[in-house]
Amino acid sequence: MSEKAIPYKIYLEESEMPTSWYNMRADMKVKPAPLLNPGTHKPLTAEEMSGIFCEELVAQELDDTTAYIKIPDEIRNFYKMYRPSPLVRAYCLEQKLGTPAKIYYKFEGNNTSGSHKLNSAIAQAYYAKKQGLKGVTTETGAGQWGTALSMACAYFDLDCKVYMVKVSYEQKPFRREVMRTYGASVTPSPSETTDVGKKILAEHPGTTGSLGCAISEAVEVAVKNPGYRYVLGSVLNQVLLHQSVIGLETKAAMDKYGIKPDVIIGCAGGGSNLGGLIAPFMGEKLRGEADYRIIAVEPASCPSFTRGTYAYDFCDTGMICPLAKMYTLGSGFIPSANHAGGLRFHGMSTTLSQLYHDGYMEAVSAEQTSVFEAAEKFARIEGILPAPESSHAIKAAIDEALKCKETGEEKTILFGLTGTGYFDLVAYQKFNDGEMSDYIPSDEEIAAAVAKLPKVE
Amino acid sequence: MSEKAIPYKIYLEESEMPTSWYNMRADMKVKPAPLLNPGTHKPLTAEEMSGIFCEELVAQELDDTTAYIKIPDEIRNFYKMYRPSPLVRAYCLEQKLGTPAKIYYKFEGNNTSGSHKLNSAIAQAYYAKKQGLKGVTTETGAGQWGTALSMACAYFDLDCKVYMVKVSYEQKPFRREVMRTYGASVTPSPSETTDVGKKILAEHPGTTGSLGCAISEAVEVAVKNPGYRYVLGSVLNQVLLHQSVIGLETKAAMDKYGIKPDVIIGCAGGGSNLGGLIAPFMGEKLRGEADYRIIAVEPASCPSFTRGTYAYDFCDTGMICPLAKMYTLGSGFIPSANHAGGLRFHGMSTTLSQLYHDGYMEAVSAEQTSVFEAAEKFARIEGILPAPESSHAIKAAIDEALKCKETGEEKTILFGLTGTGYFDLVAYQKFNDGEMSDYIPSDEEIAAAVAKLPKVE
Repeated sequence: MSEKAIPYKIYLEESEMPTSWYNMRADMKVKPAPLLNPGTHKPLTAEEMSGIFCEELVAQELDDTTAYIKIPDEIRNFYKMYRPSPLVRAYCLEQKLGTPAKIYYKFEGNNTSGSHKLNSAIAQAYYAKKQGLKGVTTETGAGQWGTALSMACAYFDLDCKVYMVKVSYEQKPFRREVMRTYGASVTPSPSETTDVGKKILAEHPGTTGSLGCAISEAVEVAVKNPGYRYVLGSVLNQVLLHQSVIGLETKAAMDKYGIKPDVIIGCAGGGSNLGGLIAPFMGEKLRGEADYRIIAVEPASCPSFTRGTYAYDFCDTGMICPLAKMYTLGSGFIPSANHAGGLRFHGMSTTLSQLYHDGYMEAVSAEQTSVFEAAEKFARIEGILPAPESSHAIKAAIDEALKCKETGEEKTILFGLTGTGYFDLVAYQKFNDGEMSDYIPSDEEIAAAVAKLPKVE
Repeated sequence: MSEKAIPYKIYLEESEMPTSWYNMRADMKVKPAPLLNPGTHKPLTAEEMSGIFCEELVAQELDDTTAYIKIPDEIRNFYKMYRPSPLVRAYCLEQKLGTPAKIYYKFEGNNTSGSHKLNSAIAQAYYAKKQGLKGVTTETGAGQWGTALSMACAYFDLDCKVYMVKVSYEQKPFRREVMRTYGASVTPSPSETTDVGKKILAEHPGTTGSLGCAISEAVEVAVKNPGYRYVLGSVLNQVLLHQSVIGLETKAAMDKYGIKPDVIIGCAGGGSNLGGLIAPFMGEKLRGEADYRIIAVEPASCPSFTRGTYAYDFCDTGMICPLAKMYTLGSGFIPSANHAGGLRFHGMSTTLSQLYHDGYMEAVSAEQTSVFEAAEKFARIEGILPAPESSHAIKAAIDEALKCKETGEEKTILFGLTGTGYFDLVAYQKFNDGEMSDYIPSDEEIAAAVAKLPKVE
C-alpha cells in the first residue's frame, strides 16, 4: 500500500477490536520465575494468593501456558466506551525533525483516567464484582492508576480505597478530586491508618513516600477487611495480560496498512504499558517469526533495568508482599521526588525482567529535564500535552528519529504514548520556570539498597 | 439499518471529513443584524474591522450569502491531528436512565485544549499567519479558548497574548501553565496593563472579572501594537462558521447510519458550540427540508436568551467594541462567579439571536448544582468527566430522556459534549464537599443593566 494512504490517525472498527488478551509467557521458553512466599521462600500457591487477590486474577497470574484468554463481554463493552485508541502517524513531528524515519504512536490518553491504566482497572474491578466482593484497595503513584480504578469501581458499584504516594498527593490535589468524584476514598501514603504506614513514618519521618510504601498499606487494609481484595496497576503478569489490548490493537492497525515497525519504544516503571504494547510483537519474536528492536525507557533517577540487579526482592517497602525475581534497586530504595510518579518503582515486571535478561529487549535511561524538553517539543508540534511518564518514550523516539536523520535510514519507529499530562502542571510549571533539576542516584546509594535484598537460594 | 449495527463510537474516515465550512446565514431569510460602529451607529465596514481583525476573517464575518467556504489544506491537516471527533451512542447512560430514548453526543474534548475551541483557534491563527502578522491577542474565560489559541499559535509560530478572566485565572492556575507550555503570555483581567483595565478596576475594585472586561483589554492591546490583531473564541459569525465542522461531521456520521435526531441540545455562552453543532441541521430547517427541535441551555446565573433583551449592545464591558444586535443582559451585567466560566458572557451570537427571535430554536436555563449532579452522574456512567459548560447540555439531555421514559417515546436526542472538566476540579471539589451554591440574578439586577443599553435607532 502506498504511504499516502496512511491517515493521521488509524482507528480500528469496533468489530476489529481484540476479543482475547495475549499472554506472552505462553511463548517464552524460559518462563518468568514464580512469586515466592516471603516467609517460606517456596512458590506462592493459588490458595495463598487468594487472600490478597481475586480468584480469577490469581488464575491469570499463575497461567504461563495459555496464549489467548477471552475478554469477557462486560469488559469489552466498557472498552468500547473509550477504545479502540488511535494509532497516530506523527507526520508533523517527522517534518519538524526533518527525519526520514516514520514515527507512529499508540495514544492511550483519550479517557478520563488519562492513561492506559483503565484497561486493567476495568478487568480487575469486573472480576472483583463477579466474586461478590464489597470493594478493593490499591496504591497509586502519579494518580493515573487510582483514577482508573475509581472509574472502574464506579461503573461496577464497588467501594474503592486508594493509597496515594504522598509526593503525588501534594503535587496533584486535583487527581484526588477526580477520584472522589468517582466515589473513591483517597489517603496520602505513608499514613497513620495502617501498621506498616506508622512503621515507615517512624523510620523515615518526612518521607515523600513511594509506590513500595503505598502498596504495603493497601495490602494491609485488604487483608484486614473482609470482602476486600488488593488490586495492583502494574508489575503483575495479570496486568500485562490485560494491557496486551494495546499491542493487539496496534498490531491489527499496522497489519491493516502493511506497516512493520523496526523499533518499538515504551516507558517502563513497573512495566504494564511496555509489556502491553510489545506483547504481540514480542510473541512473534519469541516464536522466531519476526524481529523487532524493543527499547524500555526508564528515569535516570530510578533505573531498575539499567542499574539494578536481577534477583528476588519484595515488591513493597514494608516487606509484607511476596518476593518477585526482577530487576530491582532494592525494596529499601526510595527514589528522588522526580515528576514521573508512575515510574518511581524500585522493581520491574518479572516477565519483562526475564525477557530483558534473555536479551529480547534493550533498556535506556533519561534525565527528567531532557524528558520535559522532549515533552514540550512534542506538545507544540503534535498538539498533545504528554504525561511525564510517557515523555520518556517520546524522548527516546526523537533520539532514534534523529539518528535516522544522520544515517538516512527510513526506519519505522513505534512508541507508546501512555497518557496525558493534564494533572502534571506543577511539574510543567517547574520546567517552564527553569527550576527543574535532575537527580541520579550514586553507585553507593544503589549498592546499599541492593545489599539488603532478601537471601533466596 | 438495524439498531444493533450502531457502534458505541462512530468515527468518520479521514476522507469523509468536511472539506468546507457551512455558513448558516446564507440560508436565513432574515439575516442577522450587522455590527455597528459604536461612535456613528452605522454598519461597520470591512475597512473599519480590519484594524481589529485579520482581513480574511473580516470577509468571513461579513459574508452572509456564501453557503460553503473551503477549509484551507493547512487547517484540514491540523484538524486531522485531533479530528474527526467521535459521535458517541450513550448506551450506558440510556440503560441507567431506563429510557426508550436514544442518546448521542458529539464529543469535542479529545484534544489538549480540552474543547471544541481549537476548531476556530487554528483557523484564526492560520489567517493571521497568512497575513504576515507577528501575533494575536485574546481573552479567555474558563481557559479553554486561551489554551486552544496558544496551541494554534505554537503550531504556526505566532506570539499569543491572553487576558484571562480573573476568577478563572485563580480557580485554574494549571490552565495558565498549559498556555505557558505552548509559549503564550497570560494576564489576569482586569489588569493594570491596559487603560480600560485600570478604569474597570477603579470603578469595580475587587471584581472577579468577566469575559466582557477581558475582551476590552485584549482589543486595546491589539489596536495599540503594530503587527497584532485581536481574535475571539465565540459570538462572532466567523467563529460559528469554523465551528460548523462539528455539526457537519455529526450529520455525516448520522447520515451514514441512517440516524435522524429529534432533539438537538447544546450549551450556550457566546454560542460557538451550539452554532457549530446545529449548523447543517438548522440549514435543513431554514430551507424547509427537515424539522428538528433545537434547544440552547444556559446557566441560570447568566440567562441572556431566557431573560435578556433583544437589542443592540456592546460586546465588551469597556464599551470600546462594536455594537451587536443580540439577546443581552447588558454589557454592564457582571455575572456571579459560577463555575461555568465559558458561559459567563452577557450577550449571545447575533446569528443565534436572530434564529431564536424568529422561533427556530428554544432556550432553557439550569442552576449549577443541578448541572453538577448531571455531570457527576454522566462521569460515573459514561466514563468522561465533563466540563461544567458542557454539563448544561448533559442536564437538559437527561431531562429530555426522562420525559421520554414517562411518555414512552423513542426519541433520538443529540447533544454536544463540548469538553472535559480536567481543569475544573476546584468546582468539582466544591460540589463534592457540598459547598456549591446557586445564584439567580433578580429582575431588578437585570433591569438595571439593561437600562444602560446604548440607544440605537
